[in-house]
This record gives sequence, structure tokens and C-alpha cells, in this order.
Amino acid sequence: MIKVGIVGATGYTGAELLRLLAVHPEAEVTVITSRSEQGKPVADLYPSLRGIVELAFSLPDVDQLAQCDVVFFATPHGVAQSMVASILERGVKVIDLSADFRIRDVPTWESWYGQTHGAPELIPQAVYGLPELNREAIANASLIACPGCYPTSVQLGFLPLMEAGCIDLNDLIANSASGVSGAGRQASISGLHTEVSDSFKAYAASGHRHLPEIVQGLNDMALSANGSEDASVNLTFVPHLLPINRGIHSTLYATLTDLTVDVQALFEARYAGEPFVDVMPAGSHPQTNSVRGSNVCRIAVHRPNGGAKVVVLVVEDNLTKGASGQGIQCMNIICGLAENAGLAAPALLP
Amino acid sequence: MIKVGIVGATGYTGAELLRLLAVHPEAEVTVITSRSEQGKPVADLYPSLRGIVELAFSLPDVDQLAQCDVVFFATPHGVAQSMVASILERGVKVIDLSADFRIRDVPTWESWYGQTHGAPELIPQAVYGLPELNREAIANASLIACPGCYPTSVQLGFLPLMEAGCIDLNDLIANSASGVSGAGRQASISGLHTEVSDSFKAYAASGHRHLPEIVQGLNDMALSANGSEDASVNLTFVPHLLPINRGIHSTLYATLTDLTVDVQALFEARYAGEPFVDVMPAGSHPQTNSVRGSNVCRIAVHRPNGGAKVVVLVVEDNLTKGASGQGIQCMNIICGLAENAGLAAPALLP
Amino acid sequence: MIKVGIVGATGYTGAELLRLLAVHPEAEVTVITSRSEQGKPVADLYPSLRGIVELAFSLPDVDQLAQCDVVFFATPHGVAQSMVASILERGVKVIDLSADFRIRDVPTWESWYGQTHGAPELIPQAVYGLPELNREAIANASLIACPGCYPTSVQLGFLPLMEAGCIDLNDLIANSASGVSGAGRQASISGLHTEVSDSFKAYAASGHRHLPEIVQGLNDMALSANGSEDASVNLTFVPHLLPINRGIHSTLYATLTDLTVDVQALFEARYAGEPFVDVMPAGSHPQTNSVRGSNVCRIAVHRPNGGAKVVVLVVEDNLTKGASGQGIQCMNIICGLAENAGLAAPALLP
Amino acid sequence: MIKVGIVGATGYTGAELLRLLAVHPEAEVTVITSRSEQGKPVADLYPSLRGIVELAFSLPDVDQLAQCDVVFFATPHGVAQSMVASILERGVKVIDLSADFRIRDVPTWESWYGQTHGAPELIPQAVYGLPELNREAIANASLIACPGCYPTSVQLGFLPLMEAGCIDLNDLIANSASGVSGAGRQASISGLHTEVSDSFKAYAASGHRHLPEIVQGLNDMALSANGSEDASVNLTFVPHLLPINRGIHSTLYATLTDLTVDVQALFEARYAGEPFVDVMPAGSHPQTNSVRGSNVCRIAVHRPNGGAKVVVLVVEDNLTKGASGQGIQCMNIICGLAENAGLAAPALLP
Repeated sequence: MIKVGIVGATGYTGAELLRLLAVHPEAEVTVITSRSEQGKPVADLYPSLRGIVELAFSLPDVDQLAQCDVVFFATPHGVAQSMVASILERGVKVIDLSADFRIRDVPTWESWYGQTHGAPELIPQAVYGLPELNREAIANASLIACPGCYPTSVQLGFLPLMEAGCIDLNDLIANSASGVSGAGRQASISGLHTEVSDSFKAYAASGHRHLPEIVQGLNDMALSANGSEDASVNLTFVPHLLPINRGIHSTLYATLTDLTVDVQALFEARYAGEPFVDVMPAGSHPQTNSVRGSNVCRIAVHRPNGGAKVVVLVVEDNLTKGASGQGIQCMNIICGLAENAGLAAPALLP
Repeated sequence: MIKVGIVGATGYTGAELLRLLAVHPEAEVTVITSRSEQGKPVADLYPSLRGIVELAFSLPDVDQLAQCDVVFFATPHGVAQSMVASILERGVKVIDLSADFRIRDVPTWESWYGQTHGAPELIPQAVYGLPELNREAIANASLIACPGCYPTSVQLGFLPLMEAGCIDLNDLIANSASGVSGAGRQASISGLHTEVSDSFKAYAASGHRHLPEIVQGLNDMALSANGSEDASVNLTFVPHLLPINRGIHSTLYATLTDLTVDVQALFEARYAGEPFVDVMPAGSHPQTNSVRGSNVCRIAVHRPNGGAKVVVLVVEDNLTKGASGQGIQCMNIICGLAENAGLAAPALLP
Repeated sequence: MIKVGIVGATGYTGAELLRLLAVHPEAEVTVITSRSEQGKPVADLYPSLRGIVELAFSLPDVDQLAQCDVVFFATPHGVAQSMVASILERGVKVIDLSADFRIRDVPTWESWYGQTHGAPELIPQAVYGLPELNREAIANASLIACPGCYPTSVQLGFLPLMEAGCIDLNDLIANSASGVSGAGRQASISGLHTEVSDSFKAYAASGHRHLPEIVQGLNDMALSANGSEDASVNLTFVPHLLPINRGIHSTLYATLTDLTVDVQALFEARYAGEPFVDVMPAGSHPQTNSVRGSNVCRIAVHRPNGGAKVVVLVVEDNLTKGASGQGIQCMNIICGLAENAGLAAPALLP
Repeated sequence: MIKVGIVGATGYTGAELLRLLAVHPEAEVTVITSRSEQGKPVADLYPSLRGIVELAFSLPDVDQLAQCDVVFFATPHGVAQSMVASILERGVKVIDLSADFRIRDVPTWESWYGQTHGAPELIPQAVYGLPELNREAIANASLIACPGCYPTSVQLGFLPLMEAGCIDLNDLIANSASGVSGAGRQASISGLHTEVSDSFKAYAASGHRHLPEIVQGLNDMALSANGSEDASVNLTFVPHLLPINRGIHSTLYATLTDLTVDVQALFEARYAGEPFVDVMPAGSHPQTNSVRGSNVCRIAVHRPNGGAKVVVLVVEDNLTKGASGQGIQCMNIICGLAENAGLAAPALLP
């Protein structure tokens, strides 16, 4: 059994790791840490885990974590940076669900996250944990920077088009909407049921932290596709807040530069064999509840009126494929397990 | 008191007319009709109206309706066409909330609505009931074609930009999301709580009935702005289904052809004095619950990174400004009442 | 126009007062106070009030409040106690929506609210603001203690049975469920959408602050009914948290001591003429959305199998009839206005 | 691998069987039938099962079903009666999730379900599938009548008290609330999101089909406890409709006849070792989301003010422990598998 540690397990991505790993056939959680809840049994915080997880939160301790095979960070940004080096040194693999190692350009990271990066020297060795793009690199990595929830959906939706080089890079739009668990488990007024339910709004229309991460990823795809050294994707990204708990829906718009391309075939070919990307039949509209609690990313492609505009619809569960499920998928790859080990359960419907 | 008749009052737009008119200071509902619920007191169908509306549904009868000053049609498409002529003949004003008279081009209407139009000769005299665009014509009209819910939000959002002629007409995107009351009050599986709640999806990505209505409106604006006789707006419109009862949110994308324009000032100037359009301060994100049950359309404009892309955020209540409230606004204009008579109540929050 | 002041208007009961008073024909809000939001326009906090309420929050100031005719307290418990005396002295009527003056027995209040009462000398002059019970006393009162949300629904549901003296006082059960706005507008984890939505639970099953208030009210009814000086109602009260914003549903259980009583007739007779209590036809099941945003309390009575058990179903909007609407109803009575002035709008449905 | 057939798999209990059996380590679904959807792949109806269930619906055929080891009926009442005999004859075990064999008294069944029973001769051999009560009988049964969703929660909540003989049987109250999936997947107005969401109501307060089933179960417990041949439980049962998809919450009230009993200890002792009943610590309030998608029934016991009234709070997922999960638990028992095989996954939270 793979021994797993989780740093910062009081939030929803931590709880999601616990939920998924509870039925993982080849991994078991042996350490969970929390500064604020030290000593408290997990099941007191999450009654859904009563009888299933017997562990209590402990203070983060490198010696203890060093006895794990893999350590997940489910912490706010800024925390993993300060601890990862000492854990990697002990030969333990690290999978970071936070934003700490996702962006290669340090000033960009520091500008969007409003703090000095605590471990810039580790960034070059961090592998971006999007298996559909980086499977081999993930297999050999010691430090995984798991993609953000929005970036996963947007990149998987644009990926086949970017690789095919058939869209205008200068005018990409990602209109995304997320369930409220994406905001985490913190006391706030803006997250209250009274403020969120029965309502809908955009937010951060003028700029969101996930924008530079997405643009970095799309630029990489563009460079790789055209073989040049320069690319400059122009993306407008507007996130919205849905009155649901789990789920991201991204509606992507791009303009085809090659009208002869069969976009349906393109997507089906690109994702053939991918265990967690489901390209739906032409004409489909994926619904977020079809992936609730599942690691699947479901995609449909449309060309309204057969015109130049291509519309890609992408759904995922922000806590699963958008965070903890993707982290476990990476762990499975790193550890040589079946990629879907512990991730095979269907979505919860209704 | 203005005497009001409502044809087809069992659905949600009918119920919304009854709700709003119950507190209208200068109008009273005197006739409500329904073929399926004939004889049943309204309050048996809508307990919220117990003690407030004493009327029972009657069979639609032209003689009875002719005693009203204004008759609303809150019927499925195809019904108003067959009755309007006989009512207009009797000197009664008609406000049609259905799609029957919204589209001037008969073959286009017939193609999208899948039936032969029953009164094409009346189409030329129908005035499109968007007061912000057509106030004077509405004042003198006998037959009002009330705009659809999506078209209201999309047109009000693009209007200042269209009139200013400062955007590329060839690449407009309307990413809209509606609450489920837009689908009406019909028994269905797709509208069940179990299917809709805690979920989100796009639908009709390849073409929706409101598309030709919106395009007609935008083309009119373009023609009027540039004085030419030809215009050809290219719009991609993708509607989505929100797990809320009331509310539409449209996120509009356009590319500025004139980067010097101050979009915030443009919107504020255009809608100054409008009683039901609220241009929010720069940087705002309107939320649908801020217009729940109110006739207000709330708008915010963004230019991410100060670039060429302009993003307009528009919210309205699909049953109020998107249907019945707008109809009453038109009635007030026609009858020479204060435009906000009966429409002054704030949104219900939370 | 009645001049109205609101102390503590940042919470949901304050916002509800503003919503309702915005369309009150004979009252206008002239002062609203908040320590935390001093100087901020109300409409910045509640965009639903943009264009409707132009006031900004000010620091609570007795001289300023003394220029009002009526001052509402929409504050947490403990605040009104410290300010009411100085306002009453200036001849201003006070309507307190908080719990400060609801319970006559000071030690009981202090025990449940965990603090020393700051103005016990005012308690005797406070009139419990349940118009269906105390209309005359309210008309002549200077200080109104508005009932809690749960107590309103439970007392109105038991009232006809208590007055008729036809139930066993020793075994009353109130199984109540409230929307989450009852918890107010405070940052918390327990009120997050992620914690509340798509779920249901009981809370405070072993004792809730509203229990002594309800018991006091029921005891009063019992004493008044049997003319004795002693009564001792035994009530089990279990509140539950609903994943809705507004609405309380109480399911009340009692055992008839007189099986010949016609409970339907009893309720209809007791509430005949009451503007805000609607006794539904036998066999009905009132739904909370039928009173959403309305001041109506809707009641149905059942005797399963015609047995001795009587089941009373009561719905109200906790923010309206359960708080601010009831306060305005009291204000109307005090000021000699029509009791339903400003309160006539139907519920928002759907 | 156990071969499983499902008759009537288009509804939510059918879909729940498919969801759970998809990850069952020792069972596989080999036949699913539907008259209305014959030939359609399951995954077309339930996109959440794309890539997981490859089967298509077939017409119900006894020869085909006879090749299964176990056949589930997830049909409306009245269907299983007509098919079960021919399947049992072929040596196949039958687990009926419908109401057809739950009630031993045929006239009672016929009166509540409004039809003549089609196979009364099979009723005596049907074993009521509540493992906590009937584990041994289930192990040897050929025909299981799975309990209804409400009856499961009410019986498990009263069971320890009934067996201990410490409550007044003459005054039991079950105030229950169910998510809307309990109403199944049929087109209806009453199940629409617009009618259900953001609202709450009681229904069937004067009598619900689950009442005779619960009373039969409680009477059995009473008889078994007091060894007599006569028992007559008097239960008032009021169901309510929650605006959630999954979950039942029952709040049970009883009066202790023995005030010395330690109810917490009683419940803990009774359910010690039960894999799917979790007695929470004293003072707890179970929340339905803690069992969402899980087979666990979570219970807390209260004695408000230490009085004679005992309040039992019970939560379960109506589709899992209240239907399909319980059916699989029975299947595991019948087939000699670990009782929690395929049922070990924690609830989905948030």
C-alpha cells in the first residue's frame, strides 16, 4: 500500500482526497495535518467520514511526513513553498494542489498572488500535473504542480484545437462558471447560502489569478504546435459563480482559421484512450451533474450554423478532476498504478 | 382604472402579470382566461394569490375581452395570432408576450417556430416592445410584440455600443444563462428538480429561437447607426440553464474598433433617465438576485486589461423585465401612466 | 408621511424593512444607522436598492433618531436595551425586532441570552407585537417587542386550539424548519452554501432560545382561556435548517381532549377578518413559497384518520411575518394606518 | 461474479443500482430492461454512466433474466407481482425495491395502492429486507421485499426503543422530510424545479402509503418485545418535501414510560457492529449531506431538558439506504459476500 500524507486537510480539497482515497485499493492515508484543528479526529469535522477515517489531525511534521510515499498539499497558496524542499529531500514525492508551483515566471506569480515566492529554485523541477498533456513527465516527477480547476477545463477544451493549429490565437474566449466549493471552506459573507443560492454573477471579469496559468499553458501548446519559439495567445477569461456546490462548466469560443477541419473527429482522435476525458457525440451538451464526484472531464464541440466559430463545452467536478481527483491520477501515474485506481466510481446522479 | 384581460394566465408569465397588477395603482385585472382550467379560481392554482385575486379562469371570449382596455397574451406561440385581429377590431390594445409578432420576416418566423403564421398581415403594425429603443412608437401602438427574455438582455447590453458604432459587427458573442422558469410551467422530465438543481449546462448551442430575434434587433441598430441600408451582424449566441427559478445573466463579448471610446461613460449617457436600466459603477458585477422580482435591468461594462475586448454583464428577471414587467411597462406607456406605475418595488433579497 | 429610523440596518431584517418601506404609501425611511458601515450608501451594500434608497448609513445618534416618528431596532440582542430608553424619552415609538423585550422574566432572558439585561425596567411597558393576539395593546404602545420568527408561526398555529381549551397542554410538539436567512448576515462556515444547500438537519434539539418565548405565549393563552392563574404548557420544540433563504414551516402536533370539536371551523372563525392569516381549505398543505416576501401566515389543519391527534401546518416568511413585515404591521396599527399599508404585495412565485 | 438483472432501470432507483454495482467487486449487471426505452444504451439516458455501463435496455424477458443470479425490480408498484413467480421458478433470487410484497395484509395493500394484488400467494415467502432486523431470514430468502425509504428511517429510529419496551406505544410521531428524488423520474408539474426549489411543504398529512408499512413493522417489534400476541401502535406520520435531490430526515417523538433508561447507551448497544447504522455522540444533529450517496443511516437521540420526551433524529439517503443500497446490502447477505461489498464509499461532501 502506498502511504499518503495530506497537509492541510481541513478544506474541501483535503476532504475530497480523504473521500477518494478511502476506497483506493492501493493507497492509504497515514498522516493528515492541520495547524488549526490539531488533535481533532477528522470525523468530527466531516461526519461523512465517521467509521471510515479514524485519523486525527496532527501538526505538520517533516519527520512524520517523510515516512509517507506521497505527500499532498491541500493548503492555501504560500504554504507548500515553505515545506516542500524538506520533504523532497527525504525522497518523498510531493503533489501540490495549490498554486505555488504552477507558474514558471516568478514575477508573474508574485504579482498575481501578492507575495514573494518562497522557493523559486524548485519551480524548474515542478511538473504541471495535467496527465493528458504531460503523462510521461509526471511519471518521472518528484514534484507535481496540479493545475487549477478553471485551467484544467479551459486547457482540455482548447488542447485539440491548439495542437491542430486551426484557430486564431488572437481571439480566444473562455466563459467559465464554477460551483461555490471553489472558494474553499472559509467563513465569509460572500459564500453564504443567502448570498449565493438562487443567483448567478460574473466575478473578476477584469482579471483572475487563473488567467496567467491558462495563458502559459495555451502558449506552450501553441509553441509546441508551430515549432516556433514565440507565441502569444490572446485570451479573455470571465469566471462566474454558480449556485451549486461542485462543478465547472466552461464555454469556449474560438475562430477556425481552417474551415475544412472536422472538429468532432479532431477531439475524438486526440482523446481516444484517455481514461478521464469523454468526448460526447456531436450535438451534445454536457451537464455538470454528469461528473459530480467523478474524475471525468466531459466535452462537446459545436460549430453553430457550420460557421467559423467553434464552441467547446467542457464540464468537470472542480474538486475532483479540477483538484484532488487529478492529484490522485498523478499519484497513480507516479506510482505505476492503474491510472484509474480509486477513481472508477461513476458520478452521483441525481 | 385600466381594465386588463389576460389570455392564458395559467403559466408563469400569466402569474407574474397577476402578481404585478395586484398592486398596480391604476389598473385592475377583470378577465383571465384558460382553456384547461376553466372555472377554477386562480387562487386554487396559485395559493400565493389567495385573498388577493378573486377571479376564476374563463374560456377565452372576444366579447368579454372587448370590454377590457388592454389584453395581454401570455400564451404559447401560435395562439395570439389566431385571436388578436378580432380583439384589435374592437379597439382594444393588445400586448403579446409570446413570440408571434416579434420577427418581421415571416419565413424566418415559420422556420424557427415550425408552423405557418396565422396573421402575417398584422406583423407590420406590431411594435417591438422594448421601451429603451421604441418608446414613442409604443405610445402610439395598438399591438405590442414584447421582446423575448434573452433578446431583452442581449439587446440592452449591446445597444450603446451598436449606436456608437464602435465595435466589430462581425464577431459578437452572447453567452447567456437563464433560470428554469423560462421553460414555463409544463410537466416535463427535463425541468424536474432532480435534473436541474445542483447542475448547469448549455443548450441549443447550435441554434435557439431567440437568435433571429436578437439578430434582427442588432441589425436594426446597426442600420440606424450607420445610416446605410445594409448591415449584417454576426452573432454567436449560446444559452445555458441555471439551477435558479428567476433571472437571466448575459455575458456579452465584442471587439472595439475604436480604442479611445470610454465605454463606461457611453453606457451611462445612453441610459441616463431610463427608469429600468441601471448602469453600475465601473468594476461592478451585477448579480441576478439584485433584480429578482423587479423590472430593472442592471448592466456593468468591463475592458479586461484595457484591451480591445469589451465585456458587458447584464442581469434581468426573465419573468419581469424579460416578459410580464416589460409588458406592463409598455401598457403604462400606451395608457399615459407613469412608466413605473406598479413596477416600483425593489427586488426580493435574499 | 411617517418618518422612520432603522438602527442596525445592515442585516437581513434591516434590508427587509428597507424593501418593504420603499413602497409604503405613508412612511419613509429618513435615518439608517450602522456602526460598521458608517458613511456607506445602503445601495452599495444592497445593489437591489440602487435607485430606490438614496440614504447612507450613519452612526446611531439619539438626536437624529428623535426626529423620527418610529424607530425600528434590527440589531442583535443586547443592543436595543442600551438605547431604547433615551429614544422613548423623546416621544418616539420604538419597534424592536430583536429579542430584548420579548421575555417578561428577566432571569429567564438572562439565562438563555447569556448576558445581564440592560433595561429590565422597560420590560413591563413592552407590548408583544403579535397583532392577532394583542391588537389593542399594540395600538397604544410606545415600545413593541416583535415576536421571533419561530414563535410567530407556532403561536398562530396553536392559538385557536389554546383559546378553545380543547387540547392536552401537557404534550405539545412544534417541529419547525427555517430558511437560512434566520441566521442573519454574518460570516460563518455553518451558513456557507456548501454546508447548507442540498442538505437538511435539526439543530438545538435540546433547547433553543425561542422555546421560552413560545412557552410564555402559550401559557398566557392557557391562562386566559381557563381563567385560572396557573398554567403549565409542556412543549417540545425542535427547529431544523432548510436549504432555502426565506420561509418557516411549522408542523404542530397536539392531542384533542374534546373529539367533537370541528377544528377547521374553529380556525376559520378565529382568523376571520385577520388581514394576514389565511386558513386554507381542509386537506390543504401550505407551501413556504406561497408566502415568500409576503406578510401572510398560511395555515392548514388536519386530523389524520379523524383521530385525536390534530396536526397544524403553518407557513410564513421568517423575514416578513416573522420579523420586519410584522414590525411594519405593528407600526401601521400604532400610527392608525390601514393595517396592510405597504404590505399588500403578493408573494413572489416562482 | 454474481450476475445481476435489473427490471425497470430507467428510474432513479434503477440508476442508483447501476451506479453502485459499477464498482461492486463481486457483481456485474448483465441485463437491464425497460419497455419504454428498449434498445437505447443506458449511457444515452444517463450520461454519467458513459464509459462505465455499456449495456442497452432490453424488453423484459424471463429466459434472459433467468440467467442472472439475482434480479432487482426497480419498477412502479404492480409490476413485480406479475413477473416474480416465473423468475423465482427458475431458481433466481428476487429483490423487489417496489412496494409489492412489503405489506402482509392483502386488503390493506389493495386499499392503499388502489389495485388488486397480482400474486398474494407469494407474500408469505417474501422477507422484509431490513438487515438490522431480519439478517438471518434475508440470508435464506428467495424473495426480498425491500423497505420503503421513509419506513427504513422511521423503523431504524424507533427500533431500540421498541425492543426495550420503554416508550408509550399509543403516541408515536414521525415527522419526516424527503428529497424530491423519492417521487421518481416522471414528467410532472409538481416535481418541477420552479415548484420545489426554494420551498418546503408537508404532504399527505392525512395518510401516506408508507404508513401501513411502518405500522406493520412497529407492531411486529412491539409483539416481539412484549411476547404477547397483540399490539397496537398509534403512529402519526407526516411526510414533507425537501428542496434537495437525495436524503431523508426523520424526527421521531416518543414518550418514555421508563425515565431511568439511558437512551444513548440503548442505541449504541443495539447498533454496535451494524455496518450501516451510525449512532452519533450525544448532542449530535445528523445532516442529510453526511450520507449523500452512502448506505449509512446516521442517528442521534435527544431528551430535551432530560424530560420524558425522546427525540430521535435519523438521516439516510432515500436512494441508497432507503432503496438501492439496501437492496444491494440484502444481495450481499443472500450471496454470502461481505455485507459492505460495493457499499464502502463515503458520502459525497460537499
